[in-house]
Amino acid sequence: MTPEAVQAGLLGGESLLQRRSIAKAITLLESTRVDHRAQGDALLTALLPHTGKSFRLGISGVPGVGKSTFIEALGLYLIGQGHRVAVLTIDPSSSVSGGSILGDKTRMEHLSMHEKAFIRPSPSSGTLGGVAEKTREAMLVCEAAGYDIVIVETVGVGQSETAVQGMTDMFVLMQLPNAGDDLQAIKKGVMELADLVVINKADIDADAATRAQAQITSSLRLLGMHGNPNDPHSDKHWQPNVMSLSALLGKGVDTFWAAVTEFQTLQTANGLFSQRRQNQSLAWMWERIDAGLKQAFKQNPAVREQLPQLTAAVQAGQLAASTAARNLLSVLELTAQAAPNLGAKS
Amino acid sequence: MTPEAVQAGLLGGESLLQRRSIAKAITLLESTRVDHRAQGDALLTALLPHTGKSFRLGISGVPGVGKSTFIEALGLYLIGQGHRVAVLTIDPSSSVSGGSILGDKTRMEHLSMHEKAFIRPSPSSGTLGGVAEKTREAMLVCEAAGYDIVIVETVGVGQSETAVQGMTDMFVLMQLPNAGDDLQAIKKGVMELADLVVINKADIDADAATRAQAQITSSLRLLGMHGNPNDPHSDKHWQPNVMSLSALLGKGVDTFWAAVTEFQTLQTANGLFSQRRQNQSLAWMWERIDAGLKQAFKQNPAVREQLPQLTAAVQAGQLAASTAARNLLSVLELTAQAAPNLGAKS
Repeated sequence: MTPEAVQAGLLGGESLLQRRSIAKAITLLESTRVDHRAQGDALLTALLPHTGKSFRLGISGVPGVGKSTFIEALGLYLIGQGHRVAVLTIDPSSSVSGGSILGDKTRMEHLSMHEKAFIRPSPSSGTLGGVAEKTREAMLVCEAAGYDIVIVETVGVGQSETAVQGMTDMFVLMQLPNAGDDLQAIKKGVMELADLVVINKADIDADAATRAQAQITSSLRLLGMHGNPNDPHSDKHWQPNVMSLSALLGKGVDTFWAAVTEFQTLQTANGLFSQRRQNQSLAWMWERIDAGLKQAFKQNPAVREQLPQLTAAVQAGQLAASTAARNLLSVLELTAQAAPNLGAKS
Repeated sequence: MTPEAVQAGLLGGESLLQRRSIAKAITLLESTRVDHRAQGDALLTALLPHTGKSFRLGISGVPGVGKSTFIEALGLYLIGQGHRVAVLTIDPSSSVSGGSILGDKTRMEHLSMHEKAFIRPSPSSGTLGGVAEKTREAMLVCEAAGYDIVIVETVGVGQSETAVQGMTDMFVLMQLPNAGDDLQAIKKGVMELADLVVINKADIDADAATRAQAQITSSLRLLGMHGNPNDPHSDKHWQPNVMSLSALLGKGVDTFWAAVTEFQTLQTANGLFSQRRQNQSLAWMWERIDAGLKQAFKQNPAVREQLPQLTAAVQAGQLAASTAARNLLSVLELTAQAAPNLGAKS
């Protein structure tokens, strides 16, 4: 398939051709070959006017919290309401294990077989930044193909919750009704990212779920994130809610979606919906620039030659770290170039 | 004073000359002039063999927790034990207010007048990275001048606790005996940085202090940081302790110092003391490289020319953020250079 055929199939193909075109597009965008990268960028730019019309929902939670069961129940519910649902996963550890721990299609048996659903496992390409970039691009592809709900799921390894929150319109944290589970989430800084906290497995122990709900609500209040006019969410006119449900029994999925819709309506009405997306795009651009600068630095021949001895001198305490950094930066054309040119201009 | 005179005064001068040399050295290192920077680097390299022999103690806590009172009491206690004490401050907000909120010398009235103490307010030079760099360099200067205890204090604005923990041998978190104070510290990720938690103002309400101590100990246990073989501190064979004291009455300062000494002895015995310092130096070098790359990027004439229109295109949704990042990176000589040279080599 040529990039043009992929684009045409994506935007207007019948069901099977479209599905094949999505897969081809994502494969092209995940390729590290320089010519593929240029084709991928051209494709992205062509698709961009057709993107952005979906609602992007981020879901995070520790392994065993029941994310797959919940996303399967939610996905089928949404398809029943007339939506088309794409599910993408961010799992930075999959580059080690060579794939998600359990295949995503095995995990969401019924949803994966539905023609109105598209499920894509985590890209397995090294750093979190790289994985997040591929997932963002895959999200744009799915949107261009007309999926109007994109769910991005993560198991919460390293900083992956921050990455998912940084690419979605609403970020949901799933919790177990266990003592201390909220402290772990607060410690990782993920509680303050949450627009909504969901306690799953309320079917197993309703009392524990009720206690956990009260506990987390109280924590959110103490952290100034709930019912506090100075809270970080107050500029959104939205206070993070805590609800419990049972994904296994499918109980609470409709209430959950009602809360999502309420959030979406509010954010759209006060203009924060589009503002969040603009901020996310700019943050994404700068994150990629930082990563690219560092990569180019490490690949620079002069740096590669001098880095080992300067690193050794720093470790041995013969050279201050800041002096070593300045020495390394000065060998780059980049620094040497920028300064005189700027001087000549002013 | 020439840099040579500063160096000589620092390393061997009598009390007043040495004090003046320290101030001159720090001023030189804080200068942004290119020739000063080169002189500063030469001075640092000359001083380096004389550094590293102090114990570096980081102290953090919210405004009002009583840091100054505690550091004054601790400093005078340590001088009584024969030590020389330097106190440095990291306050990234001081670049806004034009200085620390209260002058450090006013805050530590008795300590600041003692000839065996040296107190330096926060550098007021913009970013946290810049402030941290100046403080690290000032720390080396103080060590070369023979101060064997360096205390680095921060009010905990932004990520300043991480910066202080990243330049000290032991990081102490001061807490108030208030409900929810521990949650705030957990939320900010500072609780897990702490090697020791100190609850101050036990004189005001002993019961509240006892409750806070139990609460924080319980939180540390739930977070897996206390009495848990899988905790992040377990490789140090050290479990973060919680103690209460009264800085105002000077009660508990000796117990505090006994805990510090125990930590120091343990870390030295198992080799983690020097390992932590090596890791800190390398992390510092890379942090400075990242900052330097980003600064050079933003000052590059071609980037300055293209950045506004690419940023606007990303905001308008006409260009994917990753495409914009690749476009901007490709205008740099850096990227263009590195690739072919690497290709020719392989």
